[in-house]
Parts: sequence; structure tokens; C-alpha cells
Amino acid sequence: MNTLTVDLGERSYPIYIGRDLLGRRDVLQRHISGRQVLVVTNPTVAPLYLEKLRPALQGKQVAEVILPDGEQYKNLTTLEQIFDTLLQQRFDRSCTLIALGGGVIGDTAGFAAACYQRGVHYIQIPTTLLAQVDSSVGGKTAVNHPRGKNMIGAFHQPRCVIADTDTLTTLPQRELSAGLAEVVKYGLIRDADFFDWLEIHSAALLARDANQLAHAIARSCRNKAEIVAADEREGGIRALLNLGHTFGHAIETGLGYGEWLHGEAIAAGMVLAAQLSARLGWLEPEQVERVRRLFRSLHLPVIPPADLSPEQFLNLMAVDKKVLAGRLRLILLKGIGRAVIVDDIDPADIVATLNQARSSG
Amino acid sequence: MNTLTVDLGERSYPIYIGRDLLGRRDVLQRHISGRQVLVVTNPTVAPLYLEKLRPALQGKQVAEVILPDGEQYKNLTTLEQIFDTLLQQRFDRSCTLIALGGGVIGDTAGFAAACYQRGVHYIQIPTTLLAQVDSSVGGKTAVNHPRGKNMIGAFHQPRCVIADTDTLTTLPQRELSAGLAEVVKYGLIRDADFFDWLEIHSAALLARDANQLAHAIARSCRNKAEIVAADEREGGIRALLNLGHTFGHAIETGLGYGEWLHGEAIAAGMVLAAQLSARLGWLEPEQVERVRRLFRSLHLPVIPPADLSPEQFLNLMAVDKKVLAGRLRLILLKGIGRAVIVDDIDPADIVATLNQARSSG
Repeated sequence: MNTLTVDLGERSYPIYIGRDLLGRRDVLQRHISGRQVLVVTNPTVAPLYLEKLRPALQGKQVAEVILPDGEQYKNLTTLEQIFDTLLQQRFDRSCTLIALGGGVIGDTAGFAAACYQRGVHYIQIPTTLLAQVDSSVGGKTAVNHPRGKNMIGAFHQPRCVIADTDTLTTLPQRELSAGLAEVVKYGLIRDADFFDWLEIHSAALLARDANQLAHAIARSCRNKAEIVAADEREGGIRALLNLGHTFGHAIETGLGYGEWLHGEAIAAGMVLAAQLSARLGWLEPEQVERVRRLFRSLHLPVIPPADLSPEQFLNLMAVDKKVLAGRLRLILLKGIGRAVIVDDIDPADIVATLNQARSSG
Repeated sequence: MNTLTVDLGERSYPIYIGRDLLGRRDVLQRHISGRQVLVVTNPTVAPLYLEKLRPALQGKQVAEVILPDGEQYKNLTTLEQIFDTLLQQRFDRSCTLIALGGGVIGDTAGFAAACYQRGVHYIQIPTTLLAQVDSSVGGKTAVNHPRGKNMIGAFHQPRCVIADTDTLTTLPQRELSAGLAEVVKYGLIRDADFFDWLEIHSAALLARDANQLAHAIARSCRNKAEIVAADEREGGIRALLNLGHTFGHAIETGLGYGEWLHGEAIAAGMVLAAQLSARLGWLEPEQVERVRRLFRSLHLPVIPPADLSPEQFLNLMAVDKKVLAGRLRLILLKGIGRAVIVDDIDPADIVATLNQARSSG
């Protein structure tokens, strides 16, 4: 078991990474102070891992809620299901929620914990690669609105994150690839050596080599933990983690949630960010090609969906949270491993980049 | 204009109390950093005060949302109306919400501000006495759930509170009395001199004597500001502010939101707390009588509604947020001006108090 720490003063917490952690009562109960526990999961994860988790919760009053599976259910209606269960079971403000699942479960359960009785404890047990390397760490919680992704949410840090790498053995291949998109992101924004390593080990990762996966998860979490510790509420450098996300959110919202996986959308989004960076003269065409090649080797899309016009794209990007005072703010690249926050992007450059990308298919 | 401060480090903010403050552009715009402003109000307040507020917002991109009036609308559905408007108008995370109205508007708009894009600024402009002396100060925001009041919410401090005492001239008499219930609360929990003052000035307050009202508001806000500064997130003494509230929430939830006003419910609740305190030997019968007499002189109920049985009461109290680890926690009195937090109340004492109160009508 590998233990990292997210260093946030009195809100600090550990990330445990390793095999066979789900049933570890000693690990889990160290972080549960009350007697009531609500496990939030979905119908895909429950039959695989709920039984494994239960013994670790012995001695607690445990309730379970199974939410429908998919990004399209990450909304206020699903959130209410959690509140209904908590209140039916008379859970008080000393209770703990456990998010057992992927990013959708973690974001929704985390936001429920942020709001229930104005804030209760929660624990992240991410079961997808994407959740293990990104969404479970850092305390960003949210649900979607039909007009925009993650528009309703809170910063609320978990008590701990337990990344049991055994859960990745049952992950569909498409979701494994989607998770690797967020892994690549750390290489692109601040860890060029890691990017090099990923180029060499992409096939091993796709083949689920346990050691290489564990290395990729730990290195991703360390990058994320450092950024979050430096900027918990995204006043500055944490925004770098949004590389590819403004484009990606436009794809997800434009196609309807669930059509493309989040990791797929941001892979295409990161390629667009690289292409726009090259258009501005900040990245060499060969570097853009390295980015495209790595994503392709990980079976990720490198071209935005054909049925979204550049105008639709721009419109969707304009409601994204990264817009500030009417100016479009994007994360772009000045090299592999060197992301920058850029305000005042000329929309014409975005349209040109989108047109070029669509014709480069 | 009287200015108090809620002292919370980097989250500190002023409370302005005085006449003719609504149109004061200098006061308001000092606390608006972005260019987008959403005014949240209701159909009762809007025709009276929206026009007065508008000049103070000159130069801003202003949108308005009119929510239905009443505690029964303080729910997730109403909250969505705010999010819909914010997103339709493409408000970004530098926007400011303004809550113009009573406690329902303040709680709902404040919670919307806490969640929109994971937190934006907001300003409280309370137009009822209850909101001016209590709910607008301290950053507690929430909406109700059918099973319990304020069950879904957040701690989110406003940028400032503007209490324009002129707005009280249009307040219905019943709501004026309801607001005075929260004023009396400060006397009961920590300010015996203020309780004495209220006994002398109850008639002047009911007659809306402007000077006496301004004094009562400022003294209430000072009490509240001191408590909030000492315990922002209700880990300790802030709970004293809940005197009468566990009983009161049971009345509000049991009768259906909006049947009794919040202030009415907690007046009856504070009498019950006093009676239970006397039953435990902590308060003299004469002191209980002083409490009853003051509330009666302010035209407030001193007996719980006849159609709630003691069993229903207990059941409703059990889901209240003041329950911790299955034990009923109540705020009781060890004297006028001296409230205490008590765990492990014997339910039999509550039932006996309720039965006695019902027969004392």
C-alpha cells in the first residue's frame, strides 16, 4: 500500500493506493467518526464490490443507495435520492457517506455530503481509473445542469481516498482508456518525464499491467495532490488541471451527457488545446503530433465529433466556468509539461482550430 | 447609519443598519467586484423595493428572478429557478447574487450562491425584521426537505448585510411580531439586560417606533455577530441560537411549511424550552411566566398547536439537525440570559412538558 497526503492544514487527508484495500476495516474505520454510514454506489459497481466492502463496515449502522449509472444522471434529481435516503434513515450530522464508484458517484455523493445538514464527512472509494487519478482527489464536487457541466457544486474535501487497484480488473476497456486521458494530462501540464514514460508504457497500461498501472496512479495522484495543496479553491494554478476541459465540456454538453465519456471528450479537447497552442506559435507541430500519437495509441479520440459545428462549440464554451468577465479563459501549452492560463483568446483562432481539426480527420 | 462587523478573518463583513440604505450605490457597489448581478426577490417585495434598489446597481449587468413567496417554496425546485436564470444569462463565477427579501429569500439565494459554480459572492438585503436580526447574518444558508427544515444547505458568508429599517414600514403586523421572537431570543440566551429592555419597550416596538426598532436590530445583530465570530460552523456555542428551534421546526414541519410563521413557531418553542427547564428545576416558575408574558405582549403564540400530538412532536424532533448520535440535544435555560446545551434529555420529560403546555392553554 502506497500512502500519499493531500496537504491542506486541518483538512489534510491521505490517499491510499494498492491492492485488496476494499475490505480493509482498519484503513476505512480510521476515518469514520460517527456510527451511521451511507454507501452510495450504482448498479454496475454494487454487484462487483459492495459485498467486499461490507465487512469493513462492521459495527456501523449502514444504509446503501444505488443511483442510476451514467453521467446523464449526475443531476439534482439523483442528488435528492441521496437526501431522501439519509432522512428516511434519520442520519444525523455525525454520519459519513462513502462514494463507491466512478467519477459520477464521487461527484454526486461528495456534493450530497457537502450539503446534507450543511456538511457531513465522506470517503472516496474510486473504482475507475479516471476517478482514482483525478476526480476523487481534491474535493471538487458537483452535479450537472442541462446547460452546463458541474455548474452546481461545492469544494468539500473527503476524509480519505482509497484507490483499490484490484477494481480496475473489471473496468471496461473503453473506460480504462478514458482514465488514461487524465493520466496523460498530468504529463502535459507539469510532468514532461511522466509524459515520456507514458509514451513508452502505453501498451502495458492498456494491457493492465498491475505494476505500471499502480505507478501511473501514484504519480498522477502526487501531481494532483501538489496542485490542490497549493491552490485548494482554484484561485490560480489549479486551473491548469482544466487542460482540455473547456473544449471537452462543450463536447459532453453538446452531444448530451453520456454520449462520449468524460476522458474521451477531454482527450479530443487536449488535442485541440495543443493545436490552438501551435497556431499561436507556442508549440511545435512535432509536439502536437506526439500528443495526438499518444492519445491514439491509448485508443482515445483526437478529433472532435463531426456533428458539433464550430459555432455550437463556441456557444457551449461561453457558459463554461472558465469564462471570467466575458473573456474566454483557456489552458494552453507552451511545451509538453508546461501549461499556461491564457485570457483573451480570439474566438476566430478557436474557430480556425476547430475547422482545421475537423478536416484533419 | 450604524455599522457592525462580523469578525471572521478573511471572511469578515459589515452589517449596515439604518434608514434609506436601499438606494445607496456607494454602500452596495463597494461589495460587488464583478459586473454581473442577479437580484433574487419575491412578488411581495419586488413591487415595493425593486425600483428603489435599481439605481444603486447602475453600470452592472443586472438580472432579476422573482421566486414564489412563502416557506413552502424554500426547496430544491425553487433553487433550480435561480440556477436556470444564472445559466440562461450566462453568469460566470465572478457574479454577485443579491437577496432582497425575508429569510426564505436570503436562505435560498444564499444557498444558490454557495453552489453556483462551486461558490459565488452574495449580498443580503433583508426586508423583514426576522431576516434583519437573524437569518441574514452568519452565513447559514439552506432549503427545506419535506422531512425536515434546512436539511440541505451550506455555510457561506455574504459580502455584506444591508438592513434598511425603512422596509419595516410595509411589513405585515404578524411578521413584525414573528421577527420580535428572534429579538427576544438574544435576551433569553445571553443578554438579560436586553430582555429587561424588551419588557419595557414591547409596545413601542409593536408600534414601529423607528428609534426603538433600530436599537433592537443593532443589539440583536451585535449579539449574533459575536456568537458567529466565536463559532462560525456551529461546533459549540453557536448552537445556543437554536433556543426554541427544535420544538419550532417540529411545529413548522408537522403543520406544513407556511402554516405558522417561523418566528411564531420558535416563540412557542422557546416557551416549551422554558417550561422544560423549569421541570428540570433550572428555572423559576416566575421566570417562565415572564417569558410567556413578553411573547403574549408581542402577540406571539405561547402554546403549541393543538393538532400535533406529543408523539408526532417527538418523532419530528428526532430528525432535527440538533440530534447527535441518536441523543436528543436541546437548548434550555438556566436563567433569563443564560442558555445551555443539554444532551440526553429524557423523552418522557418532553412529553410531560408538551402535555402540560397543551392543558395550560
